[in-house]
Amino acid sequence: MASENRRPEMRKDSVNNRWVIFSPARARRPSDYKSKSNPNPNSQSECAFCLGHEHECAPEIFRVPPDSSSGWKVRVIQNLYPALNREIEPSLVENPNPSHSSGDVAICGFGFHDVVIESPVHSVHLLDLEPGEVGDVLMAYKKRIDQLRYIDSIKYVQVFKNHGASAGASMSHSHSQIMALPVVPPAVSARLDSMKEYFDQTGKCSLCEDQSNDLLIASSTHFISIAVDLGGLLKLMLRKMSLQLNNPPFNFMIHSSPLHGTPSQLPYAHWFLQIVPQLNGIGGFEMGTGCYINPVFPEDAAKVMREVCISC
Amino acid sequence: MASENRRPEMRKDSVNNRWVIFSPARARRPSDYKSKSNPNPNSQSECAFCLGHEHECAPEIFRVPPDSSSGWKVRVIQNLYPALNREIEPSLVENPNPSHSSGDVAICGFGFHDVVIESPVHSVHLLDLEPGEVGDVLMAYKKRIDQLRYIDSIKYVQVFKNHGASAGASMSHSHSQIMALPVVPPAVSARLDSMKEYFDQTGKCSLCEDQSNDLLIASSTHFISIAVDLGGLLKLMLRKMSLQLNNPPFNFMIHSSPLHGTPSQLPYAHWFLQIVPQLNGIGGFEMGTGCYINPVFPEDAAKVMREVCISC
Repeated sequence: MASENRRPEMRKDSVNNRWVIFSPARARRPSDYKSKSNPNPNSQSECAFCLGHEHECAPEIFRVPPDSSSGWKVRVIQNLYPALNREIEPSLVENPNPSHSSGDVAICGFGFHDVVIESPVHSVHLLDLEPGEVGDVLMAYKKRIDQLRYIDSIKYVQVFKNHGASAGASMSHSHSQIMALPVVPPAVSARLDSMKEYFDQTGKCSLCEDQSNDLLIASSTHFISIAVDLGGLLKLMLRKMSLQLNNPPFNFMIHSSPLHGTPSQLPYAHWFLQIVPQLNGIGGFEMGTGCYINPVFPEDAAKVMREVCISC
Repeated sequence: MASENRRPEMRKDSVNNRWVIFSPARARRPSDYKSKSNPNPNSQSECAFCLGHEHECAPEIFRVPPDSSSGWKVRVIQNLYPALNREIEPSLVENPNPSHSSGDVAICGFGFHDVVIESPVHSVHLLDLEPGEVGDVLMAYKKRIDQLRYIDSIKYVQVFKNHGASAGASMSHSHSQIMALPVVPPAVSARLDSMKEYFDQTGKCSLCEDQSNDLLIASSTHFISIAVDLGGLLKLMLRKMSLQLNNPPFNFMIHSSPLHGTPSQLPYAHWFLQIVPQLNGIGGFEMGTGCYINPVFPEDAAKVMREVCISC
């Protein structure tokens, strides 16, 4: 199709008030999964993300530890098939693109799309790492966000992980992704508005509120040491989920505030990490209404997950 | 799990401002698909939706033609495994449910969940029907909506179709569904707000605007006869999609206004039918931001679809 060599473009869907990134480069990315329904890595034992294959990847942004040569634990690299283009002239970013005749707003697809390789070893998954090593991955997210926050045109950073082909992963080697966007997505603004409304009505943060009730699965001290404390909690949750639900495909996302937020947002705009196992797909009802149907009550799911016995 | 015999409940997620329907009955519904990745019906040639098996279904609401005995073309029946419960006392509907301790708002899961059987024959799909027969299905949607609009507690009706197991269908016999909700989903309000904003800025309806540009695939006269005109157009679109994309799983949804809308909404709140082929699943980026990534520009997709040759 003629669009294959076009630069990425973001257009705002004026019916649904959401942005769509049109990115021909994404069609070219390879996959090492045999089929979409197989959540496990195939028999391949090495790939471009493995130790010793660094030259097959797009340029590195940084590694952990910073001065390691062959002994790296985490690498943050550019995505070889980025959805957004980091090379676009900043002057073009703000100007609407007149290349199509629809009434929708369009801007150039400027932004960053990075990959976080979570381990140098092909078969090691995030839940196999030590708590401190999971912490290294989380600290790599933080370091990259801290770099991106100084780029004026970047308004929001989305950290996410797709595990399993049917959850959207194209490479089985354990990795996560970081996308930096030139806009604040309306869904993010809507989430903050909703959290603010709850705070204005109750005087409480809607996330902190859940800690005191029957939805709690496990807790940890307050990230005094993020590198071990949250790392251990994330590992525990991933292992419980894998055991109870038979290693399902899953996604996780870090939901944070837009960059350059105001201090008044602090009481209710807490960031959080959401893990979504892929159990039932969504259908027309969910697409049409934005409502979800769940056969299991959350307090029952939390009880089952609390009771999963992990022998570390 | 203890929740299996509980009545359905709707809870509002105060972080994301969306409703979740917790419905234990949904876990019990059977499926006649062999696997989620197989979009085609299995070798089974008859099911409860087939002519002659009417007694295996939940109660019928109406059939088309109304006076047909063995010669029906369309049947609208109750869903045997409804996500919402039509038997709940109206007095309970408006009262928050105190059965759980989270801070989220909860209401009883009152509502209607119906099934539209589109053909008496197991192997006949919607795109196989004559234009007038597709029209009969559309007219059945309209008739049922017209019944539901007189129930005071119902605020929104969602018509949708899931085709293929991975698109959410559990039965391969061609059918669609109608759910009547006791709330207006926030996503529906947000869509109308977005369409209103476009109208206020441009004086135009954001949907009508697309008819005049390069996104148009085919058009029809203005539904003077909905039974044939829209029926023929829907059949044409489904056949083009099936030919070009190799019979993909898909969903379609009718996006309409909440019941009891005001005349001032008429210029911008046009209803529409959206068809979504399931080509790429969504991943953590889409879940986190509500933005979508598409490798194909829409004007290129429309051009390809225009050029698909259908010999009826």
